[in-house]
Amino acid sequence: MQAEPGTFFLDPRLAADTRPIADLPLCRLLLMNDARWPWVILVPRREKLVELFDMTAEDRTRLFEEANAAARALADFTRAEKINIGTLGNMVRQLHVHVVARSTGDPNWHRPNWGFETARPYAPGEADALTARMQDLAV
Amino acid sequence: MQAEPGTFFLDPRLAADTRPIADLPLCRLLLMNDARWPWVILVPRREKLVELFDMTAEDRTRLFEEANAAARALADFTRAEKINIGTLGNMVRQLHVHVVARSTGDPNWHRPNWGFETARPYAPGEADALTARMQDLAV
Repeated sequence: MQAEPGTFFLDPRLAADTRPIADLPLCRLLLMNDARWPWVILVPRREKLVELFDMTAEDRTRLFEEANAAARALADFTRAEKINIGTLGNMVRQLHVHVVARSTGDPNWHRPNWGFETARPYAPGEADALTARMQDLAV
Repeated sequence: MQAEPGTFFLDPRLAADTRPIADLPLCRLLLMNDARWPWVILVPRREKLVELFDMTAEDRTRLFEEANAAARALADFTRAEKINIGTLGNMVRQLHVHVVARSTGDPNWHRPNWGFETARPYAPGEADALTARMQDLAV
């Protein structure tokens, strides 16, 4: 189950847009550097994954159990109205799953966060509490 | 595993925007009545689900195995560039998972299909081949 070290390369765009939070049993957990929404990304530490059906069923289950744990923790931390989860990959093909806390009145509320205007990077310290909470993820 | 009849009510907006394709072991599989993208929706036939973490782990695994089968079938049928999968729920709270075939040059390509402009309903017969293919889903 544990992903192998040495065979995993994070897409450069994902690396540039995020900060690492933790390595879960399967996925690297990343914080999207966009203070408009509490937003994390899970990337399975496997080679050459693009679509869900490129994974084994066991890995797929593990991926969604890790995404589910991230969703629950984000919901607890933010008291958000709705957690949005998506795997799109129209810009970055490396398989990754977004978990985003959405609330009434947030930017583009009701509609997706993905692709909406321009990221607002976190100020120093601004994401510390969220990051600490997500580092404690129980999966 | 089989969802119980008599305890499942489809949200009226989901019902209005879609056509039923089939009942899978857990989910009702629906065709979004929007010819701009090949787009299906899976709704677990369970009561009062809003977030992924409202489900049992067994149901969650089943949901994503059914979504995965839908994704693979849509990819095979459409030869799309990328399958997009998402569970948002910012408009309709009943838990549902979108599976959408996306291709270069489609409406709003690179960005999400969700919330983009206005649906173009299928013409009579236009969705027959897609519907037939999705009725044969092996899960």
